[in-house]
Amino acid sequence: MSNPTFDLAVQLIKQASVTPEDADCQQIMAHRLEKIGFHIEHLRFEDVDNLWARFGDSGPVLVFAGHTDVVPTGPVDRWHSDPFMPELRDGYLYGRGAADMKASLAAFITATEDFLAQHPAPRGSIAFLITSDEEGPARNGTVKVIETLKARGEAIDYCIVGEPTSAERFGDTIKNGRRGSLSGHLIIHGVQGHIAYPHLAKNPIHLMAPALAELAGTEWDRGNAYFPPTTWQVSNIHGGTGATNVIPGTAELMFNFRFSTENTAETLKEKVHAILDAHGLEYELDWTLNGEPFLTDHGALIDALRSAVEDVVGQAPQLNTTGGTSDGRFIAKYCPEVVEFGPINKTIHKLNECVAVEDIPKLSAIYRRTLERLLG
Amino acid sequence: MSNPTFDLAVQLIKQASVTPEDADCQQIMAHRLEKIGFHIEHLRFEDVDNLWARFGDSGPVLVFAGHTDVVPTGPVDRWHSDPFMPELRDGYLYGRGAADMKASLAAFITATEDFLAQHPAPRGSIAFLITSDEEGPARNGTVKVIETLKARGEAIDYCIVGEPTSAERFGDTIKNGRRGSLSGHLIIHGVQGHIAYPHLAKNPIHLMAPALAELAGTEWDRGNAYFPPTTWQVSNIHGGTGATNVIPGTAELMFNFRFSTENTAETLKEKVHAILDAHGLEYELDWTLNGEPFLTDHGALIDALRSAVEDVVGQAPQLNTTGGTSDGRFIAKYCPEVVEFGPINKTIHKLNECVAVEDIPKLSAIYRRTLERLLG
Repeated sequence: MSNPTFDLAVQLIKQASVTPEDADCQQIMAHRLEKIGFHIEHLRFEDVDNLWARFGDSGPVLVFAGHTDVVPTGPVDRWHSDPFMPELRDGYLYGRGAADMKASLAAFITATEDFLAQHPAPRGSIAFLITSDEEGPARNGTVKVIETLKARGEAIDYCIVGEPTSAERFGDTIKNGRRGSLSGHLIIHGVQGHIAYPHLAKNPIHLMAPALAELAGTEWDRGNAYFPPTTWQVSNIHGGTGATNVIPGTAELMFNFRFSTENTAETLKEKVHAILDAHGLEYELDWTLNGEPFLTDHGALIDALRSAVEDVVGQAPQLNTTGGTSDGRFIAKYCPEVVEFGPINKTIHKLNECVAVEDIPKLSAIYRRTLERLLG
Repeated sequence: MSNPTFDLAVQLIKQASVTPEDADCQQIMAHRLEKIGFHIEHLRFEDVDNLWARFGDSGPVLVFAGHTDVVPTGPVDRWHSDPFMPELRDGYLYGRGAADMKASLAAFITATEDFLAQHPAPRGSIAFLITSDEEGPARNGTVKVIETLKARGEAIDYCIVGEPTSAERFGDTIKNGRRGSLSGHLIIHGVQGHIAYPHLAKNPIHLMAPALAELAGTEWDRGNAYFPPTTWQVSNIHGGTGATNVIPGTAELMFNFRFSTENTAETLKEKVHAILDAHGLEYELDWTLNGEPFLTDHGALIDALRSAVEDVVGQAPQLNTTGGTSDGRFIAKYCPEVVEFGPINKTIHKLNECVAVEDIPKLSAIYRRTLERLLG
């Protein structure tokens, strides 16, 4: 195998860039981009390296967004090869970050190199927004770069996030949005007491039960064309002193909404409070909005990317919004059209993460054709 | 203050007999009983000392039952005096075990001494069943002594347990039974998964919620003349991996019934299983029967003890069955009439446990009058 995208992917996977370490990945990318005329800015916020690289001054601005950091390897002895020594076996390239998302980063670069070789004066600008803090707290990465752009009034028009969105077959899925994520930490107050004298206590587990049943049984919305219905799930529940003869004074619940654009964080909060209040509970509830939902339901970017995928893989991709959150949530607040497209995601975050070798040049070709349709 | 019952109570409280230690309390008691003609047997089972002492060969046999062991002191620096250096202050005798139940043990002894001095040939036998394992696991104490008596065919007819049964005023309450205690450890099975993909998981907390609400809302019975209604209480609930993005695979619940004679352990188990099954849950449920309920609703012992209390304190006591379990549950399986009577229980198991000094000789007088009515 010798292919520029494959070679660059291998080079990037060799860098052990576990969040928040960038391990020089951005230097490698910046070096390549500088050679073809990009203006390079290294934006470090606390312990996080970020890269903002731009070619051209005019609009529209198309941004390739991604992350160099990878999740931890897990037990290395359960990998069939060293996670940071990329290995080619049976048509797959193995290594931590192979699919999430170093193949995409490599494809961004080679697609841009190929495109600019053909179109030295594109109708607009190309930019790279690369962080090393996507898999972690996501506080000093994309969100800070977007703030920086906003502060200087530097607009962006289109953004392709290189997340691995393909599910069963390479090219089958473009994500044109993501659900919102809203978490709650609920403490129900009762009155502690001896289990033999329940009339002198108030059992918060008993008080909570009917409200919990109602919350678990609630239909929050039915979703819409792009979003599945909003879901509510409890991740943790705890109550009790450990002693079997004591009614505890409090019970604790941690829950999470993944929500569609049919609700907002505010409407969901109101509904939860209404249920808890209707059950007469005494409680504290702390909310954390992990990400608001976003959706790009039409536009030039989707059209260009869809056609590019169809050209290269021979089948039209589907659009959906399932899965976890991504940095797309931060970019969508500032950029009108945001989509995500990348390799098959079956092995991401797992042992023996891999990407199909044949998909690597195809991914570069798809990104290049998208550039051609928008800026060529 | 100089009174033989008070002096013996002080002597017993000085012995730091935290479960399962007897700390020679039974030797002190046996020495007193031997001097007035009792036949003494020290029955040690594993780490637990027990005393069986008997005067007389004929029936009926009246047993004084109690325990020399005490619960731990808790933080000693929060006691106003050393818990094992009994101190008289403002009409109260302070020390661990003062009310639960060394004053009762002293009163058993002096009542018997006084009674036998007056009635050297009583109409029946008097026995002492004393353990040092009542506040702990209760496996090598009363239950083993009862087995020993049963094996040798030694019947007992009446039993007074010296538990502190008085609530607001000395002599206000005789317990003529105790509720049963049945515990359950429930594990609900679901399927673990990522919180963003609830359709691929089964959240055991959600599955459990409606069943929990139903169990918490169930009326198990309405009690009867001597028993309050059966109660069901959850003591501990746990589910969750700690991670906020994971739906756990199992949820766990520990609960306890305090039950009247309107139910049995078997009827309660059936009702719980019926509710869990009706909700279609997959679960494991381990039961522990801590004690079956018992009731002595009439008989010569109750009549004698009631009159004795009324004679000494000037008001008739109430009969009830509330509160925790006691060793009465083991004795009631073998003895047709079991009641419990002793000092005010407000400070038991707490810091600065105490007994009113004036109640100590009264308690001895009540036990002595009971002996007179039954065996005099």
